Amino acid sequence: MRMYDLIMKKRNNAEHSKEEIRYIIDKFTKGEIPDYQMSAWLMSVYFNGMTKEETLELTNAMADSGDRLDLSKINGVKVDKHSTGGVGDKTTFIVAPILASLGIPMAKMSGRGLGHTGGTIDKLEAIEGFNVAISEEDFINNVNNIKLSLVGQTGNLAPADKKIYALRDVTATVDSLPLIASSIMSKKLAAGADVIVLDVKCGSGAFMKDEASAKELAKTMVEIGNGAGRKTYGIITDMNEPLGCKVGNALEVYEAVEVLKLKNLEDVDFGIKRLLEVSLTLASYMLMGAKKYASDETLSYEEARKICEEAITSGKALDKFAEFAAAQGGDSKMLYNPELLPKAKYIVPVYASKEGYVASCKTSEVGMVSLILGGGRETKESIIDLAVGIDIRKHIGDYVKTDEVFAYIHADDEAVIKEAEKRLLGAYEISDEKIEPEKIIKYVSE
Amino acid sequence: MRMYDLIMKKRNNAEHSKEEIRYIIDKFTKGEIPDYQMSAWLMSVYFNGMTKEETLELTNAMADSGDRLDLSKINGVKVDKHSTGGVGDKTTFIVAPILASLGIPMAKMSGRGLGHTGGTIDKLEAIEGFNVAISEEDFINNVNNIKLSLVGQTGNLAPADKKIYALRDVTATVDSLPLIASSIMSKKLAAGADVIVLDVKCGSGAFMKDEASAKELAKTMVEIGNGAGRKTYGIITDMNEPLGCKVGNALEVYEAVEVLKLKNLEDVDFGIKRLLEVSLTLASYMLMGAKKYASDETLSYEEARKICEEAITSGKALDKFAEFAAAQGGDSKMLYNPELLPKAKYIVPVYASKEGYVASCKTSEVGMVSLILGGGRETKESIIDLAVGIDIRKHIGDYVKTDEVFAYIHADDEAVIKEAEKRLLGAYEISDEKIEPEKIIKYVSE
Repeated sequence: MRMYDLIMKKRNNAEHSKEEIRYIIDKFTKGEIPDYQMSAWLMSVYFNGMTKEETLELTNAMADSGDRLDLSKINGVKVDKHSTGGVGDKTTFIVAPILASLGIPMAKMSGRGLGHTGGTIDKLEAIEGFNVAISEEDFINNVNNIKLSLVGQTGNLAPADKKIYALRDVTATVDSLPLIASSIMSKKLAAGADVIVLDVKCGSGAFMKDEASAKELAKTMVEIGNGAGRKTYGIITDMNEPLGCKVGNALEVYEAVEVLKLKNLEDVDFGIKRLLEVSLTLASYMLMGAKKYASDETLSYEEARKICEEAITSGKALDKFAEFAAAQGGDSKMLYNPELLPKAKYIVPVYASKEGYVASCKTSEVGMVSLILGGGRETKESIIDLAVGIDIRKHIGDYVKTDEVFAYIHADDEAVIKEAEKRLLGAYEISDEKIEPEKIIKYVSE
Repeated sequence: MRMYDLIMKKRNNAEHSKEEIRYIIDKFTKGEIPDYQMSAWLMSVYFNGMTKEETLELTNAMADSGDRLDLSKINGVKVDKHSTGGVGDKTTFIVAPILASLGIPMAKMSGRGLGHTGGTIDKLEAIEGFNVAISEEDFINNVNNIKLSLVGQTGNLAPADKKIYALRDVTATVDSLPLIASSIMSKKLAAGADVIVLDVKCGSGAFMKDEASAKELAKTMVEIGNGAGRKTYGIITDMNEPLGCKVGNALEVYEAVEVLKLKNLEDVDFGIKRLLEVSLTLASYMLMGAKKYASDETLSYEEARKICEEAITSGKALDKFAEFAAAQGGDSKMLYNPELLPKAKYIVPVYASKEGYVASCKTSEVGMVSLILGGGRETKESIIDLAVGIDIRKHIGDYVKTDEVFAYIHADDEAVIKEAEKRLLGAYEISDEKIEPEKIIKYVSE
């Protein structure tokens, strides 16, 4: 077998055998296929796509390229969620405590942020003392004892994906459906959960801009997951504006706590309502999946949802979040009193220059504003400011007046406020006509 | 400007500006764009093609990437021909002496062979003592004095093309029309001729398998040449079987001499007739181009053809070939008496296993037989055997009996004869129905 012939084959739109896919992944991971051949192959995949069988084999080959996390010492059905990446997405801090408070083990492995999307670990580090660099033993023990623990991604999980992603990132081959699906799912399979719920973001702040391609991605990943013996759900959620109101590391933990503190889930503002809806939908499917996987017990969505809602209103989920943080060295007082979380020096109200209805949002641009403020990473080496970010008071469909606060900018560096303000307002379109916001939950694939 | 954005642009089928094309070629030649980005861009070009303007700029940028040959010290209109590569193509040894004998300066720069296609320099080295490594001064003087000289390709002619070709060769991006056209034409433009006649081969032994794509390639190259101020013709010739009868280094010089010795151009066998037809067509257009370029004098094709025919029948072209060879150290006796050229140890007649009409030929496979016999290079380092090759006695449309010689194999190594015989016969299809051979001259683009 020669890589030259395999590039030619994919270029000519023929289907690879399983052996050919394994050859490409194994040899590339070992450094025996040069980058310039791999990038030509990746570009051919971009143009010609992959069949279901090819995508499944690609995922398995990447999952097999390194270590698989051994979760066998954890009792019960292991459940995981994954988001394809958006702006203001703090659902993990709501969903994971809900599930853990219900006795479902959550062994989470997360990453740091890069570009306009924030990372779970960065956000958690806003809790003073919180430590993700715990040993595998502590990780397993914590999951068994309190049902929730979180570590940073280990070095040798799906190294093929790591190497291929680095190449895609510089050769304009990131946005290819089979490559996105296999990249996400190879890590999920290697991370070992039995039940996987995927939050596929769709809209101006997501990889997938339109519903049709989001649906195709969701279906492909669900096929891969179920094909590998994991119960998998794909839920398409709207990302045409940031999720919730707050964007930034400490700010997002703050907002998650606001949700976990709710006693009444009805009387909430529009931003919180959408965040709550995504969180409860994900949590409900995770619970349904866990029951089904363990005992083939069928819980209806409505039943699961009710249980998850009670986990919030009873205060059990917030207690679980505090217990989890404390077990990893974090200051749990901050979770009962989020005013103690890191605060920016400047909190600047921003006003729209024109009256009207909020019509659309370039969501990734809002993520870029957070980056400008210092809240994200431009390169892997960047040091991030946990306190800064944006608190958005108006959402798509809202009427905005020029003397009403549109958003607050939380900044530590005075010099960047003007630019942040300009770009933030530039990301939104104000219209004379009333616009209906997109449905927050667009589709469920299982 | 960033290469990432330029890959994305071509991938999304947008058109590059001239500055963008220059950026890609200049930075890649300097080593500032890595191979893995270049190969992703090349694959995008393979899929999305290039506009006329992009292709012209790409060619000019590659021609400008190194030295241009300075032919200003040569008197008169400089004329060049180029073949896109085929099997048994010895037209240069007929065409160049014809033109030179008519006083048209031919300053030729040629390459060595690789793969199934033989190289001009390798073939000329069958003439004892012939030396292509002459100084630029001797080269210019020879052209001025005897109107014909030939050197090997210098190191720094279109280095961008050299570097890009090496990458295309290992990433399955060779067969892209704008990349082929710009690769050929960048070298032709840098080599400095005023008039360029392109022999675009079409068929089973050529890059271009069908007439439509050969036409597109010819038209594209003619546009590039004329666009750069050179008078350019593109002539599509059939390569569905080897050109002429003989394939191999000394054997091809032998056959060219056979043609140059003809006193009567009518009464010749079918193989020679096709070789003669291609040679006279190319030579006639070169002559027409030279006259037109020098004085805007219009020579009709029929007039030019008559002059070229007389150059053969008068013996002047053969004399010029001998004079040219002698001026570069070659033994000119070999050209008047080609029996003196290197001869193989074994000359083995091959018979068809089945009676019928010759219906088709896998021409590149015949080139591979020559390679097996030792007459070609598998890698740049291979040492070639000048004496070996194939002499084909039957052509498409001929009736062949099992007791008639189909071909002679000229071999020096007894061990490879059996395989050569098997593969040679395997390259031909014998049919019960009479097949009409393809027209030898298929199209002229100017």
